[in-house]
Amino acid sequence: MKKLINAPEDVLTDALAGFAAAHPELTVDLEQRVIHRTGRPATPKVALVSGGGSGHEPLHAGFVGPGMLDAACPGEVFTSPVPDQLLAAARAVHSGAGVLFVVKNYTGDVLNFELAAELAEEEGIEVRTILVNDDVAVEDSTWTAGRRGTGATVMVEKCAGALAERGAPLDAVAALGTRVNAASRSFAIALTAATTPAAGKPGFDLPEGEIEVGVGIHGEPGRRREPLRPAAELAAEVVDTILADHTLTAGDEVIALLNGLGATPLLELYVLYGTVHDHLAARGITIARSLVGTYVTSLDMAGFSLTLTKADPELLDLWDAPATTPALRRP
Amino acid sequence: MKKLINAPEDVLTDALAGFAAAHPELTVDLEQRVIHRTGRPATPKVALVSGGGSGHEPLHAGFVGPGMLDAACPGEVFTSPVPDQLLAAARAVHSGAGVLFVVKNYTGDVLNFELAAELAEEEGIEVRTILVNDDVAVEDSTWTAGRRGTGATVMVEKCAGALAERGAPLDAVAALGTRVNAASRSFAIALTAATTPAAGKPGFDLPEGEIEVGVGIHGEPGRRREPLRPAAELAAEVVDTILADHTLTAGDEVIALLNGLGATPLLELYVLYGTVHDHLAARGITIARSLVGTYVTSLDMAGFSLTLTKADPELLDLWDAPATTPALRRP
Repeated sequence: MKKLINAPEDVLTDALAGFAAAHPELTVDLEQRVIHRTGRPATPKVALVSGGGSGHEPLHAGFVGPGMLDAACPGEVFTSPVPDQLLAAARAVHSGAGVLFVVKNYTGDVLNFELAAELAEEEGIEVRTILVNDDVAVEDSTWTAGRRGTGATVMVEKCAGALAERGAPLDAVAALGTRVNAASRSFAIALTAATTPAAGKPGFDLPEGEIEVGVGIHGEPGRRREPLRPAAELAAEVVDTILADHTLTAGDEVIALLNGLGATPLLELYVLYGTVHDHLAARGITIARSLVGTYVTSLDMAGFSLTLTKADPELLDLWDAPATTPALRRP
Repeated sequence: MKKLINAPEDVLTDALAGFAAAHPELTVDLEQRVIHRTGRPATPKVALVSGGGSGHEPLHAGFVGPGMLDAACPGEVFTSPVPDQLLAAARAVHSGAGVLFVVKNYTGDVLNFELAAELAEEEGIEVRTILVNDDVAVEDSTWTAGRRGTGATVMVEKCAGALAERGAPLDAVAALGTRVNAASRSFAIALTAATTPAAGKPGFDLPEGEIEVGVGIHGEPGRRREPLRPAAELAAEVVDTILADHTLTAGDEVIALLNGLGATPLLELYVLYGTVHDHLAARGITIARSLVGTYVTSLDMAGFSLTLTKADPELLDLWDAPATTPALRRP
């Protein structure tokens, strides 16, 4: 597999330098590997810090900015950020109202964020944590106890970020983020495996004509392998799989994220989205807001994920609130 | 090659239905295959209409909205939109101040937009055309007399769209768009070939470890084939290739678009962007504004293109003007 890199061991350093050049409105601490907003808020506000392995871009650095995250900490590719890095982020953005960690449920991430929270608390920085675990595919996985965290991270970071921006206190922002996660379910299908720079070859073997149903964003195995079918069948099955695990009923509204895993053309995502929309409508469920695009990736994996978040007036209001980040801007 | 489609002949229809569902703020005429803004402007304004073959998403439909295009016409995959379709778009968005066609320089597009312009003029709709031909790779190509139109389309649609929004007359908007194109140069490198739904296999054969230098967005041959090299070497060479064809000198500012061709991870685009930034800086050229992401694609092609537009205060002001479209929002 061909990669546009210099050396596998330099990918993160090089990408961070490029990110810093492309986004002068943000501060990039190249040594600590923290991307954060520039300057402190005029009045203290809850600071949202997220992070995780690289290779899922634009998650998380692409969501740093007014209305979403205050800081993001990228680890090496598919590797958790380290506690010192997370602590440096908390220090950089703490303005006196506490820090909220948004953590995708992978064992390494959970442990390192926990350690960082302890270190921050020792310094007098109050910390709360939201654990994102929205992937209904499997209960435990290669690097996960419980469900994996995927697309709901975008929903949590957008809605909790908006509430923090409005000056809500730490416990309220944490409760809101936890509520968004609980209202969200995701499921993914892969057509190809991702190739990490270090490995240089696909992470798993997926024959031509087969798909991995329920794949994780690091290529973790899903529920089964089966032959590729028409997009409408796959999209309908993904919707049904999510609904079987969700409390959604006729009359409900959702926020939908139809997400490309990295190498899927936008044209194909729109093909899928049409079925997602119609299939939900046939069950009396209305998509009140949507995102169709590439937001939570697995490097160059071809495939897609769907995330459905049960909406209510408060969540829609937060979803619509202003955000100015590299990868997501509202209104 | 696996595709998330239903049937090759239904891809455009299905994708348009999905686009319509995802973007209720826009009007999608599924029969005429025109995406346009909803409602007429309160006062007449120049209407920007673009289009081209599908497979380059988010171009063009993703750039329809206040501050950019008034309408977009997608053809079948890698196939020009037809004159009647373009005429329908002109009729739908004409508000009395004339219509500006933004046309990428491919023979079919040029002919069909010309025919549509004649038909529109017969109906009393004044039309001007901007021909985008920014790709310095080759003079003539598979489907092109003269240079191909690629990434500069985004620059033209953004800047001319902003000027039209401010109420400038047709000739002024056309002149500005022509000026943006003349100030722009692009060059692309492919790591893999795109696969169209109809073909079902890559459009050309590119061995593992080789790249196509100067590739077109339909997989048209470039200048040569050669072994893959480190990203920094490729990025520097692309910058030098553009500079050799440009009037840029030390002290100049540019708007830079570092664009993924469809399957390239954002992580790799940032790796490349770092070198683009530093290499230009070493020549005294400053990137005043940048876009790093996937904007002008060739389906699932892996690779990147760079577009550099010589900037001046007027262009930067137009670049920074508000835009609310599916794929580009400012500020």
